[in-house]
Amino acid sequence: MSHDIRIVTEAELREVVALDVETVDVIEAAFAALAGGEVVMPPVMSMALHEANGEVDVKTAYIPGFDGFAVKVSPGFFDNPKLGLPSLNGLMILFSARTGLVQAVFLDNGYLTDIRTAAAGAVAARHLAPEDVTTAGVIGTGVQARLQMRAVHLVRPFERVLVWGRDAQRATECAADLKAALGVQAEVCTDAETLVRRSQLVVTTTPATDPVLKADWLHPELHVTAMGSDQEGKQELEAACLTRADLYVCDRVSQAEKMGELRAARAAGTAPEDPAELGQIVTGARPGRQAPGDITIADLTGTGAQDTAIASHVATRLGAAGTPIRAR
Amino acid sequence: MSHDIRIVTEAELREVVALDVETVDVIEAAFAALAGGEVVMPPVMSMALHEANGEVDVKTAYIPGFDGFAVKVSPGFFDNPKLGLPSLNGLMILFSARTGLVQAVFLDNGYLTDIRTAAAGAVAARHLAPEDVTTAGVIGTGVQARLQMRAVHLVRPFERVLVWGRDAQRATECAADLKAALGVQAEVCTDAETLVRRSQLVVTTTPATDPVLKADWLHPELHVTAMGSDQEGKQELEAACLTRADLYVCDRVSQAEKMGELRAARAAGTAPEDPAELGQIVTGARPGRQAPGDITIADLTGTGAQDTAIASHVATRLGAAGTPIRAR
Repeated sequence: MSHDIRIVTEAELREVVALDVETVDVIEAAFAALAGGEVVMPPVMSMALHEANGEVDVKTAYIPGFDGFAVKVSPGFFDNPKLGLPSLNGLMILFSARTGLVQAVFLDNGYLTDIRTAAAGAVAARHLAPEDVTTAGVIGTGVQARLQMRAVHLVRPFERVLVWGRDAQRATECAADLKAALGVQAEVCTDAETLVRRSQLVVTTTPATDPVLKADWLHPELHVTAMGSDQEGKQELEAACLTRADLYVCDRVSQAEKMGELRAARAAGTAPEDPAELGQIVTGARPGRQAPGDITIADLTGTGAQDTAIASHVATRLGAAGTPIRAR
Repeated sequence: MSHDIRIVTEAELREVVALDVETVDVIEAAFAALAGGEVVMPPVMSMALHEANGEVDVKTAYIPGFDGFAVKVSPGFFDNPKLGLPSLNGLMILFSARTGLVQAVFLDNGYLTDIRTAAAGAVAARHLAPEDVTTAGVIGTGVQARLQMRAVHLVRPFERVLVWGRDAQRATECAADLKAALGVQAEVCTDAETLVRRSQLVVTTTPATDPVLKADWLHPELHVTAMGSDQEGKQELEAACLTRADLYVCDRVSQAEKMGELRAARAAGTAPEDPAELGQIVTGARPGRQAPGDITIADLTGTGAQDTAIASHVATRLGAAGTPIRAR
């Protein structure tokens, strides 16, 4: 029986899917499925290549009812910029959930990961942030800083964005890009504390190993999404934040306790007991924000369920895009 | 910076690499590297899809000195034959070990896994089997039964092959295929015991969960390679075999104790202490067969190092084969 596999490049994928409300809805549904308890999601596979200052992560998940499942390989090689190459690359493979046959290879160079990660930030904001967000702040100045603010703006159309990063030049560029993309006011802050105190919603998007956001800065009517930590050793929030907040939510407890903010908080003895997962908030199984003045935190490490969801979404919108290869 | 990725189909790969002595040497070198202790090889990632009677395994390894590393995805969907499709499929992706960029996608449908698995059997036979093997036996009648015998014949050119399987018709076909491929005598045995007692080398290639080879059948001047067990719950050798043998060797202790014959032997209290790995035999770090009359056992679960080795070997021989896709 002959079988064609579709090979789709990043440029082709960018024509097919974007960071929009539809993508946010797709990722929200993946979190809801994850809360249902029927998703099969093995632990993240991780490999370090110390000689090249590189690491590789593999994620996957099977979501019952979905026609396919994705296997996603994300290499991060942090000396690449010296060679004129981006640090993050990789691809996703979509398999049939009925036969295991390869359906498509998405040579996305990390693009699909970028938008499914940003979309998760929007899901967290939709369910946890105060209703009225006038000012949003982002700590970090990279690709995700821009995408997270664009994603949040879909669900909380703020008027002003504040940016802080260690490199003032990069912060200025990030603020200018966000101003142009969203048509909002954009300011660079001189320190992270000012940014947090002035915002109703903050996203941290750094690879920090020392916290960039202190518990003392938390204030009523604030939501914080920490999405930078995705490996043991990374930490963006001071450990005390997690119990100082009225509600702490993570994407997956089994991942957050290994590679998210929950890890350091547990080590410091300041972790909430029985933390909720974002999918439980989405389905209503656990309560979200209770009062306008609440402080909420979302801790996102990135799940294979998001990868299966975005890859499946791409498949439904692919049309004739890509190059078919006769594989059998 | 533009970057092309080579997409190579199974048919193209079959033109490029075969099960030959060169492939055996490549896999032997991977085992030697594994023994050197500098290989980075994460635990196998495994996901079950019970609704479809399917499973997916992901393997990878970084071998220092190699230009690339492979990530291999192996789906096994055991109801596929009812749909006219093979159970085993999958692909390998070759990444640069310096930048993490995807170099090539090998749409091999499991072909490269098949030959690297068979080649490992040849490595085991080369280092562990008696010098003179007149009669080789295979328990199992599938693709690996044929490939394992072809691989063994490269290093121990036996005159006669014995075949046993639960399905007599399939055993007859397997024997006929081996006779034609190798130009040897081929017989179907009516029971596994007869096969083992008459052979100097036996390979078990089944998905058995109850042992197909009993300790009482072991006799002087015998080597056994058990390559079927690759998951918790599978077991081909009666647990007592492992200590009844003069030497038990596995491909990787950390895998064999989870998914190989070592698992059941440990549970039964009949596991050898401090088992050797095949790579240690290859490098001479641990002794192999000591006397012609010894009984030896090799327990092969399949390693990511083999995948990186075969994928790298393919890359060196690729020439202009495959379809280049401009990925950036």
